[in-house]
Parts: sequence; C-alpha cells; structure tokens
Amino acid sequence: MAGKAVPVSPLAPESYPHVPDVPGVRFATAEAGIKYKNRTDVLLAVMDAGTVAAGVFTTSKCPSAPVDWCRMNLAQGEARALVVNSGNANAFTGKKGAAAVALTAEIAAKAAGCQTSEVFLASTGVIGEPLDAQKFEGVLQDCAARAQGGPWLDAAKAIMTTDTFPKVATRTASIHGVDVTIAGIAKGAGMIAPDMATMLSFVFTDAAIGQEALQTMLSEGVTGSFNAVTVDGDTSTSDTLMLFATGAATARGQHSVAEAGDPALAGFRAALHDLLLELAKLVAKDGEGARKFVTVHVEGATSAEAARRIAMSIANSPLVKTAIAGEDANWGRVVMAVGKAGQPAERDRLAISFGPHRVAVEGERDPAYSEAATSAYMKGEAIDITVDLGLGEARFTAYTCDLTKAYVEINGDYRS
Amino acid sequence: MAGKAVPVSPLAPESYPHVPDVPGVRFATAEAGIKYKNRTDVLLAVMDAGTVAAGVFTTSKCPSAPVDWCRMNLAQGEARALVVNSGNANAFTGKKGAAAVALTAEIAAKAAGCQTSEVFLASTGVIGEPLDAQKFEGVLQDCAARAQGGPWLDAAKAIMTTDTFPKVATRTASIHGVDVTIAGIAKGAGMIAPDMATMLSFVFTDAAIGQEALQTMLSEGVTGSFNAVTVDGDTSTSDTLMLFATGAATARGQHSVAEAGDPALAGFRAALHDLLLELAKLVAKDGEGARKFVTVHVEGATSAEAARRIAMSIANSPLVKTAIAGEDANWGRVVMAVGKAGQPAERDRLAISFGPHRVAVEGERDPAYSEAATSAYMKGEAIDITVDLGLGEARFTAYTCDLTKAYVEINGDYRS
Repeated sequence: MAGKAVPVSPLAPESYPHVPDVPGVRFATAEAGIKYKNRTDVLLAVMDAGTVAAGVFTTSKCPSAPVDWCRMNLAQGEARALVVNSGNANAFTGKKGAAAVALTAEIAAKAAGCQTSEVFLASTGVIGEPLDAQKFEGVLQDCAARAQGGPWLDAAKAIMTTDTFPKVATRTASIHGVDVTIAGIAKGAGMIAPDMATMLSFVFTDAAIGQEALQTMLSEGVTGSFNAVTVDGDTSTSDTLMLFATGAATARGQHSVAEAGDPALAGFRAALHDLLLELAKLVAKDGEGARKFVTVHVEGATSAEAARRIAMSIANSPLVKTAIAGEDANWGRVVMAVGKAGQPAERDRLAISFGPHRVAVEGERDPAYSEAATSAYMKGEAIDITVDLGLGEARFTAYTCDLTKAYVEINGDYRS
Repeated sequence: MAGKAVPVSPLAPESYPHVPDVPGVRFATAEAGIKYKNRTDVLLAVMDAGTVAAGVFTTSKCPSAPVDWCRMNLAQGEARALVVNSGNANAFTGKKGAAAVALTAEIAAKAAGCQTSEVFLASTGVIGEPLDAQKFEGVLQDCAARAQGGPWLDAAKAIMTTDTFPKVATRTASIHGVDVTIAGIAKGAGMIAPDMATMLSFVFTDAAIGQEALQTMLSEGVTGSFNAVTVDGDTSTSDTLMLFATGAATARGQHSVAEAGDPALAGFRAALHDLLLELAKLVAKDGEGARKFVTVHVEGATSAEAARRIAMSIANSPLVKTAIAGEDANWGRVVMAVGKAGQPAERDRLAISFGPHRVAVEGERDPAYSEAATSAYMKGEAIDITVDLGLGEARFTAYTCDLTKAYVEINGDYRS
C-alpha cells in the first residue's frame, strides 16, 4: 500500500462535521513506525477517572490478541486509556501476540497513570507478523503529555489502513436537561496486504451512564448499524466497537443513570444509534473499490431475524453487487438472493423495486416496468433496493457497496 | 453474451473422455431459438419404459417453475423423457411459468409417447422472462424421431449457457457380475445476463436399481461433490441434479436391486460418487473468470458438519479467492475465514498449508516457512489449501476457483 496512490472513494463526504471536544477525553497521535512511513499510526486516548467502557467485538473464533485483551478488561468496565495502532493487527501471533499486548498496556498504563486493567487496545494491519510493542515506549508517554480534546479528524486518520477518507461523526443529546456530547471515529474495510478488512470504531461521550446501561445501549445500537453493513461478508479477527462514557457531564448537573430503560436516556439512545448508523454508512461508502452506496430494505417479513438474513443475503451476494457495479437493475439476482437466504419467502408474493421503480410484483416482472427509467436510476451513486416479501410486518435495512474490478485488484495484490 | 468471444477456461480438460451409449437412453439436440442464435439450445432425452428417476434440487425458497414440476413428478419416480433448454430459466415467471412448464411437458409426452407425469424438465438462462414453450412444438417431435445413444458431448453442449467448455464424465461398475455404464453431463456457473449461476447435471445408467435406493445413493453422493463446490456462494433458483436408471442391464442378467444398503451396489455407489465428483470439479474449473482451481481440505475438525462449514467459509471468502487470483499465499485470510465460520476452532492449534508448504502452525507463522517456495507454488493452476484444526478427526474437502477481475466483468455487464 505504501507508495501506491489510492484514489479517494467517490462516495466520500464533501465536508467533515466539526466534532467538539468531549469533556473527560484527551488524545494525541504519533508516528510509531509500526509499518507505515510518514504518517501517524498510533492513537492514545486518555480518559478521566470514573470513565466506564462498553464494547462489542468480532464473533470470530480466531480473534486477535487485542480483542482477547479488551474482553478480559471489559469485565471490570472502567477505562483510563485506549491505544489503537494501524499497520499491524497483532492477530494470529500466538504467545508473542499476548506478550505484545501486555507490554503495550504496561507502557500505556505508565503514560496515563493508571492500571493495565483500565487500558483498552486495538490493532489493525498486517496479520501474522509479530508486533514490536517496544516501539510504543516513549511514544505513548509523549502522546500522554501532548493529549488534548481535538481535533478528532487526527484521531480518525491515525487508525486508517487503506481507508481512503477519515470517518468521524458527532451528536448531542440531553439527559436531565444537561446537554452531552457524543463523538465517534471509525475505520473501515481497508486492506493492507496481507490483512483483512477490519472495522474499528471508538465512541466517546461525557454523559454519566452506568456500565451495564452503556453496554446495553451499545449492543442494541450495533444491530441496525455496524452489523447491518457488509462489504464482502468476510468477518475480521479484529472488529472492535467501543463506547466510553467519562461522566464529566455530572459537573454540569447530570445525574448518573444506571438503568438502560430509564426514560432519561431516550434522547441519548436515539442520538447514539444515529451516530453509529452514520459511522457504519461511512464504512460502507469506503468499501474497497466502492463506486456506489447500496441500501437494501427488506419489508413484509415474518420476523425481524428473517428480514435481517434476507437483507444480508442480498447485500452479500457477489452477483447482486457486480450487477450494481454494471448499473444493471438485475432483479433476477435479487430473487436468487432472497431464495438462498433460507427464510420464509413466497415467490409469488415478492415485489422488488430499485429506488422508486418497481420492477417485479407478484412473482413476475412488473407489467408497468420501464427499462429506460430504471436504467437511468442505476447510474446514480446511491442505489436503494426494496424487497417486499408480502408475508408479515418485520423489516430490516442493510448497507453495502458495489463489487467492482477495483475490489479484486486491491485484494489480489501480492503482499510484499 | 451472443457475439461476445469468451475465452475457454485455462482449466478446461485437454481432452474429453469417450462416453459410451447407455442402453435404454436415446437423445437428440436442436435449435429451438429460445434466445441464442446458431447454437443448440434444447436437449430431449427419451428413456425406455421402466426407467426410474432420482433427483436433488435447489434449496432456494424461490425455485424455478421446472424445479417445482420435477419435484411433483419425482413422487411417482418413473421417467420416460427429459427436456432441458438453455437461454431462458423460466424462473420468477409466475403463472405464465407454470403454464409454460405444463405445455412443454405435453409436447414432450406426445413426442416420447408417455404421460406428462413421466416427463422431467430443466431450464437455464434468463430469469423473469416468460418462456415461449410453443417453440418446442415440432422441435421435440423431431428430436424424438432422431434420438440415438450419442454423442454425449452434443448433449452437454446444448445445455451450456456461458460455460466455456462442455462437461461429460463416465464410469462403469459391476452389479451381480454385470457391467453397467454411468454417463453424466453437467453445466456450471455460467451467466447470461440477467441470469444467475445455474448448475444442472443429468446422469444416466442402464443399471436396474429401485427408486428409493437410487435416490439414497444420489443424495449421499451430492454432499461431497456438487454440494462441496462453490463459485461465489450464490445459490441458483434452478439447480437440478437428476439420475435416471433405465434397468436395461437386466437383459444382460443384472437382477434389480431395491435396497441402497445391498452389498451388490458397493461398486456402483463408488463409481457414481466418483463421477459426481468429477462433474462437480469440472463446474468449479469453469467458474466465471476462473484461472485457478482451488481445493480446500479441512481436517482435525470436531464434526463433519463443522469441517464442511469451515471449508465452505474458506472456499466462499472473497478475500481468500482474490488472494489466490493474486498468487498470494495469504494465510491470514484463511485464518479469518476459519474464524468467521462460527464452528469450533482454536487459534493456537491451527496449522495451514498451501500445497506441501506449511505456512502456519500452532497459531503462528511457521518458523520454517519459505516465502520463495510458497510463492512459486501459488503460480500454479491447481492450488490446495489444507487447514488442520487439531481438534478432532472429522474432515471435508471443498472445491472452488479464484475470484478474478473477469468475474466482475462477466457479471457486471449490462443485461441487454
């Protein structure tokens, strides 16, 4: 990847939002020289005492060493430092990986003045290469000394691999009449040979929320956002989404909320879920080789799980995704993807639309279907596919991108 | 597709086996003008009275009209005629599709002198377009008049869509000391816009075997052959595998065998399964855009189902397949695919080899790994990946091809 000019995704946002400081969080980035040259590759975020953490991790049976570490520390639920490095995933590195994680945490704990049990770690990049954690010595100490409340774009850039643009989002919400801030960064389906697409996202808020409530809201929010996004159906060994709540808003009169069901959290929950969705969409828009952003709506399903499985079957189908790359309203492939999902579906009740253009109804081509109008629609950058199963009330929306030759090119390059 | 020069797969066999006549089966092909010009697009096979049929069909919840028809007729289990057309899949065609199937069966029954309940049908090609079955009128009558025992390559060619080479295989087996013949044809993961990859295969034998025994042996055989092959993980609405046994060998002294467990069938079963595997491999070798044939061996699994799921997860992974296209021994992506399969696996017990080159062992890069030797291996046309989970005794082998830019090109072309 180094030295190779990768064009910015045509789906990149035209401008970035201003993301305000989040009281209780300070961070800095640095060039640790893990793999890349002349770019930042490490992020240290330092959080005030009392910060609680929630996390959702890859379901992979072969998780990376940092994922193992985060799961272990999440049991106690307090966080004072987060270290994220790009360039090396520290995955499939055996005992060396566990040792590298422990050493990184020690260096970070010393820099942040906390326990190693309060340090969270994430790595993305080359797999199978031992991570030389010695390189963090000095670097993290220096980061801690320089840490400040922004700018968040710097944090987002330091965790990129082959992402073509940084991903940030922000929201505000009111709890007990006190405005709190939520700020999030993400990195997406980037590749550095010989890696895999790794999704990392870190969200920070100054709200005061108990750990269980925080975890509940994060777990709820991931279903319709990050878990609704797919680039190629491949699940990384390192996928990590964490949410940190510093509780600094208590200084402004917010009372800490312990229960996820507390009505005081309604606005926060909505804002959080909205932010997660925005970050997740940015990940799909920066999918490898992406030229079109695709939204798949499945409705009329017999259950939410059936709707989800059918939507993901469509969003993961190479045949559907190559058709979209070819600007082809190929509803036959959508039927195929519905059929292979193994969920309740009746061929003769299916209706399928591309944007506003209904192409199939009651199991046949829509008699009113206009090839010309639909073709014109398919030339756009945002493609909506709606499938109405006509069986029930459940629905799900998935997000993906098209499958282009550039995807194959990016992923077929030799590692060295 | 018409008028477009598609190069023959580099994985095509250098020569075709001579496939002998199968007593009790006669066939002919014709140009019915369903979609293609200047090539055969319909196959009629006529079988002697007493022929029994077995079949395995797509698991799609949106099957094509011919699949519905075959399932219905298979209940009685006798077959006198098989009609296969290419150019139109008669899938997602609603009531018109059912009517086209009924009309085709009527025309075929008249031509073959049998009941419509003894006619089996398969279609492959465009989806969502009504099939004009009137075009079979006269054509099938003429086919029946011309039908003979060979050549099988003609039958294989008539059912091709974007296959780049015809697929035939043959075996002999002995039952009660009588030699019987098995002959099979298949079509693979070809596309004609706006279709999907459809796998069709038809196998004929003169053995005398009861319907239940035939069905049992076919169902057993499909697990390790056609169900072990994947090109892109997309399941057609039309996938059909049928086995017809004419029983003509009784004239040479074979006693009909009713029980699948009868030791007299041991040789036949082995020959049948071997033939199914050969045809299935040919399908993978003609996968769209394929440049390399990939065999994925998973061993040391805790159960056969776990081994199968892990093998298919590797064989379906776009990241693994693009790496192979790039001649990259990217074992990190293999680890990823093992991990995402959701089956029992322990990172630190995994061993991974490309051909004879072990690249990872005990959860880390193999210290003895030679990048140069492995790179040289990856340049070959046949790539074997072996994953030893180190947990149990179960194993499974899957077959696939690499994922190249040509796949995207073939499938991203506009339909018209």
